[in-house]
Amino acid sequence: MQRKSFSGMNCSIARSLEEVGEWWSLLIVREMTQGMNRFDQFQKELGIARNILTARLERLTELGIVERYPLPDRASTEGYRLTPKGEDLYPVLLAMLRWGNRYKVDEPPLQLVHKSCGHNIDPLMVCNGCKEELHRRELRAYFTETAW
Amino acid sequence: MQRKSFSGMNCSIARSLEEVGEWWSLLIVREMTQGMNRFDQFQKELGIARNILTARLERLTELGIVERYPLPDRASTEGYRLTPKGEDLYPVLLAMLRWGNRYKVDEPPLQLVHKSCGHNIDPLMVCNGCKEELHRRELRAYFTETAW
Repeated sequence: MQRKSFSGMNCSIARSLEEVGEWWSLLIVREMTQGMNRFDQFQKELGIARNILTARLERLTELGIVERYPLPDRASTEGYRLTPKGEDLYPVLLAMLRWGNRYKVDEPPLQLVHKSCGHNIDPLMVCNGCKEELHRRELRAYFTETAW
Repeated sequence: MQRKSFSGMNCSIARSLEEVGEWWSLLIVREMTQGMNRFDQFQKELGIARNILTARLERLTELGIVERYPLPDRASTEGYRLTPKGEDLYPVLLAMLRWGNRYKVDEPPLQLVHKSCGHNIDPLMVCNGCKEELHRRELRAYFTETAW
């Protein structure tokens, strides 16, 4: 689908979608959070065409979300891994996982256990101040002057 | 871009992307979380073509993310608002907002204040058990048997 660029929108969400709003990108990031690091693994797991996968990995690398690194056990092959910027997408995946678990599957296919407390997690988005769960109607939004 | 359907993937993230992985969809949801409810408002705010906006709103309505309702002050016009399923996408937007604030803008254009505690929020994804922030390496994943 043709679309306009969102980079002109002064909105953090729009600009994030500009980088990772493409379906494959987030699924490739998902694979990396599950320990996959090789081109052939991504291809097999995602069933994605080689040319599309190549293009998405190049783009994610350009954006600094993914980086190439030499695989210790395969001298001639490079692996891919998340940079800190890429790792910071993890809460986006967790938020999607939670929503999908609730609305898109009968039973969650993947369970995540928080090692430190042993809890089967249902990730919550909370206020960093009071640690209470965030609900839209309890938030007040204002636009900062300097940004306009 | 042509893409395959993700609905066959037994993954909550992939299935979520199937519904809201399209850029416009999440931006339309964003508009609704900010109080917009009319076709012409979405069009103006997003700079989106009428036919694309119409198609996206129809699709979001079919998916049960958005619902039409009679606007009290405009008898002949219908408004659009989020259903509970749509409201539950808010954490996805918050996670993207946080990431975008960190990586995509010099200064966050939008600030959110938690009314109950007065905190300028930086939304955190935490474990619902211990309320500690979730980091990927502190989670253990397992696949549930019944789902396969």
